[in-house]
Amino acid sequence: MTSWLPIPDDSDFSLCNLPYGVFSTVDDSPRIGVAIGDHVVDLKALANDHIFDDFGFDTECLQNPTLNAYAALGRGVHGRVRSRLQDLLVLETKLGSELRDNANRRKRCLVPMKSITMHMPVAVGNFTDGFVGLYHAENMYRGKLIPSFWDAPTAYQGRASSVVVSGTPIHRPRGQTRVNGKAISGHCQKLDFEVEFAAIVGQGNNFGDAIDVDQADDHIFGYVLLNDWSARDFQQSEFGPFTCKNFATSISPWVVPFEALEPFRVPPTKADRPLPDYLVQKKLKSAYDIPIQATLEVAGQKYQMSRCNTKHVVFSFAQIIAHHTRGGCPLVPGDIIATGTMSGPSRPEFGCFMELSRVGTEAYGMESVDDTGLKISRTYLEDGDVVEFTCQLRSPDGTGRIGFGACRGEVLPGK
Amino acid sequence: MTSWLPIPDDSDFSLCNLPYGVFSTVDDSPRIGVAIGDHVVDLKALANDHIFDDFGFDTECLQNPTLNAYAALGRGVHGRVRSRLQDLLVLETKLGSELRDNANRRKRCLVPMKSITMHMPVAVGNFTDGFVGLYHAENMYRGKLIPSFWDAPTAYQGRASSVVVSGTPIHRPRGQTRVNGKAISGHCQKLDFEVEFAAIVGQGNNFGDAIDVDQADDHIFGYVLLNDWSARDFQQSEFGPFTCKNFATSISPWVVPFEALEPFRVPPTKADRPLPDYLVQKKLKSAYDIPIQATLEVAGQKYQMSRCNTKHVVFSFAQIIAHHTRGGCPLVPGDIIATGTMSGPSRPEFGCFMELSRVGTEAYGMESVDDTGLKISRTYLEDGDVVEFTCQLRSPDGTGRIGFGACRGEVLPGK
Repeated sequence: MTSWLPIPDDSDFSLCNLPYGVFSTVDDSPRIGVAIGDHVVDLKALANDHIFDDFGFDTECLQNPTLNAYAALGRGVHGRVRSRLQDLLVLETKLGSELRDNANRRKRCLVPMKSITMHMPVAVGNFTDGFVGLYHAENMYRGKLIPSFWDAPTAYQGRASSVVVSGTPIHRPRGQTRVNGKAISGHCQKLDFEVEFAAIVGQGNNFGDAIDVDQADDHIFGYVLLNDWSARDFQQSEFGPFTCKNFATSISPWVVPFEALEPFRVPPTKADRPLPDYLVQKKLKSAYDIPIQATLEVAGQKYQMSRCNTKHVVFSFAQIIAHHTRGGCPLVPGDIIATGTMSGPSRPEFGCFMELSRVGTEAYGMESVDDTGLKISRTYLEDGDVVEFTCQLRSPDGTGRIGFGACRGEVLPGK
Repeated sequence: MTSWLPIPDDSDFSLCNLPYGVFSTVDDSPRIGVAIGDHVVDLKALANDHIFDDFGFDTECLQNPTLNAYAALGRGVHGRVRSRLQDLLVLETKLGSELRDNANRRKRCLVPMKSITMHMPVAVGNFTDGFVGLYHAENMYRGKLIPSFWDAPTAYQGRASSVVVSGTPIHRPRGQTRVNGKAISGHCQKLDFEVEFAAIVGQGNNFGDAIDVDQADDHIFGYVLLNDWSARDFQQSEFGPFTCKNFATSISPWVVPFEALEPFRVPPTKADRPLPDYLVQKKLKSAYDIPIQATLEVAGQKYQMSRCNTKHVVFSFAQIIAHHTRGGCPLVPGDIIATGTMSGPSRPEFGCFMELSRVGTEAYGMESVDDTGLKISRTYLEDGDVVEFTCQLRSPDGTGRIGFGACRGEVLPGK
């Protein structure tokens, strides 16, 4: 699928992707756009040109500073908008001329990426953080998994208010830890990242109604990369995740639509085990094979930190949703549901320093991502470190890449 | 403090209370009101009469269907509005005539309670559930408290989307439990209530900024009673609270203002222990002595279930907020921060059936609250049971009561 618009080879934003985001320019406030190559398609501007008038939804929501109302419209509308955008942008179609050959409209509706600022794509009402990654769980529990890990998706509620968009710097948090049985207050000494993959909820469900596992995918709007920053020293003395996690969570600026990732489906890990009926999904390939690369940037030099993959989940998002809503818990448009750390089986595939440094006992050595031969090692994150997650999927037809933009954050010294 | 408006003796809503809520009438949509006796003062209508024009805030927010924007204005504005309402309603003041002697305004601004429907007072962005009740913790951990219980307020993130207003019925949730090591899916067999007390956040803080413990009270708008419905059988096999708690949480319809509860301050339980500096509060009486009665209603007959008290906390809300935001986690107007179960030291003071029935091993006998001599016993909640929390504080000047209205919910059969 080739566009008349030149798309650089290394762009995450091919015509097979078309991810949604919220952007602003110097002359207009945050609004909804779709990334294509080095440009953003301004959906507000396109709507003002009546490009979506025949779809029967109120296009006002494209002027919103968040994707929530648009996400709530459901996958039917999203699919039609996506097709229309592909028709407008693909090489040699009738509809292409509506944008390609209309210089004035091109100027209004295609915004160069270098001139925009990205914002949080959604107002996060609820953030559910899963724990369904097999190897992360095995590493954290040293191989002694509790039985319920296999019976139902493990998850907990994370903090919604501290989810921030890529690029937001993270101050080293203060908190409490225990040293020799005594409570000590101070800055985190074991600051960590966690490579996660997350679904953004589209249409929600009503209070009291469960979502069937085979309908659960219909409630997913799209996906982001997610860094679940963690203070391991605070975590050690907490009952459950609270201040060790609540200070910050970063997500990628672009939400890749549900449709764009369908070609990358695989079954979850060890999916052939018996499960309670409500978790048995007709769709066997319900997980995703999506590699996520994590790099550490120090003084402008990038080092290879981790190569994770989303395929190491023991439950799909659909199964998480079915379990999540089994008792009637409502999902709300814009909610985030994350997988937990997506570690693979070998050390270079571990998705956090707690695993990479073997619980802080052994500094982990990393090589530069280019050919400089530079090396660096870390036990946990240091001030000035920049953590970046990226994903470089190749579209099935080979015409371009699919990615989320970088999920990036710099560690600043504690306040 | 006596009002010219007749206030029934058994009303929760004396002139010393003036709690906020969101109500609707057949002829107008949800808006903000303040309870006084058998009436609601319609703040939208009062604002339209320019009663608050000299306070320098945009009164538009009083027309909102939630208290969030009003709560965000901060305690300064809330204090001025409260004084103005007391001046309008108190017996024999100049300003009283502005409402008392204006029949047309009385008709527009004083709405009989029997003609209103109550709604969720706030849109809950984040729900933090604490675990700072001494006796609940001792009962749950059989006296073996982990050391961090004393060093920092224990809490976790609850589910915001399933917080509902009093009166909303609760369907017995479905979920997963383990029987003889095997995962079983079905309806909850050990449905429980939990008596909690909760703060509603007013002004929030910015991402990355901590709130000092001595300034933390300034971020509290008011308080509600809270029932943290719990599925004990699901809880047993979960890593942390997830489906055992996410199906429903009920709150009282009225938010009692911060100012109204100042006379009921006491120190937290065992407050004289050493603490890290950031949790040391200048205000010694930082907790509250507020009795909460829990009744079980079966076939129209009420039985005495539990007599709890908020004084059994080992940390104040201010200390919870200081710890919560220590790493920079933002609080947002409308957030809920709850104490956890407010059990007292003796069995009739235990705040949930898990404690009352000694982990389900011993049915708990209850007597009717009136003189009928009727008795009933329960291990956990049965379908048709109505759980109700109330609070009957007497104002310090003896002129009336302060309460939250009932926090009430009926258990319906599972779907």
